[in-house]
Amino acid sequence: MGSNAAAEGRPRGRKRLTNQTPPPSDRTRVKRLHERGRYDRATIDAILDAMPVCHIGYSINGLPYATPTLQWREGDHVYWHGSSASGMLRAIDGALVCLTVTILDGFVVARSAFHHSLNYRSVMLFGRAEKVRDDAAKLQHLERLIEGLFPGRWQTLRPVNAKELKATAVFALPIDEASAKVRTGGPKDDEADYALPIWAGVVPVRLQLLPPEDDPRNLPDVSVPADVGALKIG
Amino acid sequence: MGSNAAAEGRPRGRKRLTNQTPPPSDRTRVKRLHERGRYDRATIDAILDAMPVCHIGYSINGLPYATPTLQWREGDHVYWHGSSASGMLRAIDGALVCLTVTILDGFVVARSAFHHSLNYRSVMLFGRAEKVRDDAAKLQHLERLIEGLFPGRWQTLRPVNAKELKATAVFALPIDEASAKVRTGGPKDDEADYALPIWAGVVPVRLQLLPPEDDPRNLPDVSVPADVGALKIG
Repeated sequence: MGSNAAAEGRPRGRKRLTNQTPPPSDRTRVKRLHERGRYDRATIDAILDAMPVCHIGYSINGLPYATPTLQWREGDHVYWHGSSASGMLRAIDGALVCLTVTILDGFVVARSAFHHSLNYRSVMLFGRAEKVRDDAAKLQHLERLIEGLFPGRWQTLRPVNAKELKATAVFALPIDEASAKVRTGGPKDDEADYALPIWAGVVPVRLQLLPPEDDPRNLPDVSVPADVGALKIG
Repeated sequence: MGSNAAAEGRPRGRKRLTNQTPPPSDRTRVKRLHERGRYDRATIDAILDAMPVCHIGYSINGLPYATPTLQWREGDHVYWHGSSASGMLRAIDGALVCLTVTILDGFVVARSAFHHSLNYRSVMLFGRAEKVRDDAAKLQHLERLIEGLFPGRWQTLRPVNAKELKATAVFALPIDEASAKVRTGGPKDDEADYALPIWAGVVPVRLQLLPPEDDPRNLPDVSVPADVGALKIG
């Protein structure tokens, strides 16, 4: 339990990414081997792209919040959206936030309580939330959200109207201060404990998409389109 | 997209729970029907018990964080743990935190982009993180963590030693300022859009436990115990 997500998910210093794939440095390499830390954009992007649910850490009047929402990546930015009337979204316009994505991959079962752990992939991004103020840009981002989940669906939908666009706020965060933490593999027990007749191993966890369920008001000839079948997660 | 987790996961006012199952009030009932808000302990506890991964929102020197960790409930408190040497855990001792648990249950696919949504269950707890300072109490809480996941496993393990106990910090948060948000069911489209030949429905999501994988150093006669088989999630 010493090697848990609380200890490992915390960034050890906020590292500013200067380009998409920084050359491996001694510091990066040591962290990768010994501390589960990853700072390469390929790892960070893969985790962001695999899990649309994130938690945003922010403060309002000194009170901390961790609020779940949907995130999607476009190049070097991550976006999220919500109601324009949301007090939370009004409060974080221009404010410092921490956007965290976590994917649980398994329970690590050890021979002592202390070495039980989790396998997981997580990313923490830090920066200022920037509201997207241009309507055309906002609409394009919403299209990317839909297309990222359901490729090809946007053009099949009833178009977004002006009222809906006004009611929706979109926020951006640059991916330039980021860290990933990844744990994989089995337990790491104390050497003496391997002689004990205690089962150890991993119980893998995955997010599973179940077959789509029709809305009862679908028209008779309408069947599940390819865009919905293309949804992936995890 | 208007009815999304960003808008819905945010507590509309922090409600202090005065007992385990407050009598339904007009305010509670209206929120339940119209805003996905739930304030009853049965709903809150069921969500906390179904998902050990949480995100803790906190601030260090005015910078917000949302850090993933493992939580477990014992009665009217939620607990988490980590390394005693963790700067994060030292920083939040006595500090205000927000502990959020989120379970993704499905993608809600609508006839317009605006009405796409997510099905989910989430809980947000607010309060001051209290460090458990008594060693005997700390050990008991760690036992509950293991037993909560793997009932019966604690007594089969190599016992926790003094060094491990010292290296582990345990924190508590009372469940007395809490809200849950739950969305279920299919899309709620604009009435006119139901005439459109666009597929709508839900793609359910669930967390799946895969068969346990043996550690390669397990002794020959050791097989998966009942405690590991009893693990449940989601």
